[in-house]
Amino acid sequence: MKIEVVGIEDIPIIKKDDNLEEIIYEAIEKNGIKIHDDDIFVVAETVVAKAEGNLVKLENVTPTMEAYKMAEVSGKDPKQCQVILDNTVNVIKCLPGLIITETPYGFICANSAVDNSNCEEGYITPLPVDPDLSAQKIKKYLDEKSGKKTAVIISDTQGRPWRVGAMGVAVGISGMHPCTDFRGMVDLYGQPLQSTIEATADELASAASLIMGQADSGLCVVLIRGYNLTNVACNIGESMISEILRDPENDAFR
Amino acid sequence: MKIEVVGIEDIPIIKKDDNLEEIIYEAIEKNGIKIHDDDIFVVAETVVAKAEGNLVKLENVTPTMEAYKMAEVSGKDPKQCQVILDNTVNVIKCLPGLIITETPYGFICANSAVDNSNCEEGYITPLPVDPDLSAQKIKKYLDEKSGKKTAVIISDTQGRPWRVGAMGVAVGISGMHPCTDFRGMVDLYGQPLQSTIEATADELASAASLIMGQADSGLCVVLIRGYNLTNVACNIGESMISEILRDPENDAFR
Repeated sequence: MKIEVVGIEDIPIIKKDDNLEEIIYEAIEKNGIKIHDDDIFVVAETVVAKAEGNLVKLENVTPTMEAYKMAEVSGKDPKQCQVILDNTVNVIKCLPGLIITETPYGFICANSAVDNSNCEEGYITPLPVDPDLSAQKIKKYLDEKSGKKTAVIISDTQGRPWRVGAMGVAVGISGMHPCTDFRGMVDLYGQPLQSTIEATADELASAASLIMGQADSGLCVVLIRGYNLTNVACNIGESMISEILRDPENDAFR
Repeated sequence: MKIEVVGIEDIPIIKKDDNLEEIIYEAIEKNGIKIHDDDIFVVAETVVAKAEGNLVKLENVTPTMEAYKMAEVSGKDPKQCQVILDNTVNVIKCLPGLIITETPYGFICANSAVDNSNCEEGYITPLPVDPDLSAQKIKKYLDEKSGKKTAVIISDTQGRPWRVGAMGVAVGISGMHPCTDFRGMVDLYGQPLQSTIEATADELASAASLIMGQADSGLCVVLIRGYNLTNVACNIGESMISEILRDPENDAFR
């Protein structure tokens, strides 16, 4: 059993209103790759947000009192705090150097994943507004062009409690569910499995992040081939990344 | 740029006092794989714990009052709670259905990673006692036999706050550091990188978990080839998984 994780080279710097799905498809072809059924394409959220014009010019931001308070506690820039608040439904923690918030989409992460890396100076990018829809658009285009059935993951890298360092996670999906449910299956000794749900989309995003993170040339799309999608596949529009979010009532850390 | 993630097939069920490193090396050879420099081998913690005899027979466990209390709150078996407590230095949360603890090695996770899957009925396995040392032993053997320089990760799958599903993480390492520090590097636009530390060993463990989790045949060793180890490599004994643990003073969730 073998999985390949392949970087799609030579994707140009993405700008507002670029046709991202077309650019990705053309790059795949230029890389000499023929799309197969069950190919999984992991796309960095930054290029999706940029193509969709989801960029905020910090100069144009006027911080509210709440943003100034958040800035004072966290030590971050008040304008940046305002953009974080504009993309936040719930502040989980605000401490010196650390802001953990819940995004409208339900992700709990640092700064609502608002980020200024890999965009022009003076700009900042929130997550794509509807990352499942962004994934669907790319999957639909790739499937129509290739006649194959792919899955698409929009990925981000996020920190964790207790452990240093960021890991790839999925923030949008299409063509697959985010988790694989092994409940009902048995282990080597015939006992029911314990750790029964696997965060497949997050693991795929982490595998892709190994390649995205190493490149100094803006590698923003990664193909994962050879993973058996059987247990997690679905048709376009039939899955949502929110399936991976913990029910707040069962969440001990918010 | 391409990474391959390859399952090492036909490793027999591991028993106490098995020579795990020899079994792994022989399986690699039987799989027709020649070890290269920078090959990374990810080994599931369960087989390491089993080979090292780190198995507890539940029948022989006498729960303390503290274990009975933990069992009453969590709804878990008192003997299992006792084994969890025996492998715990600090209880972070104990709620119905959920026990989050800190292990002597410093990992914060559910049940101190004490687990009864993939071991004989009536037994339970804590994590290996010194997982870095376990990784070192395997690396040393593989390197001596092959004349190459590999890295070894002992992996587990663990749950997370806020998101459903378990992901592969590294619990022991040799031949590499757990994180890649991109501080000082710049992005596509020449700006200093923000999300600057990547949890490389955890991402590698997650990539391996995609293969371990899918196999119904106890695939417990995975080779990752093609990852550029330059930024994280080190000699045997010069790195510790504890480098990835967040300093308690900067940890907002304990």
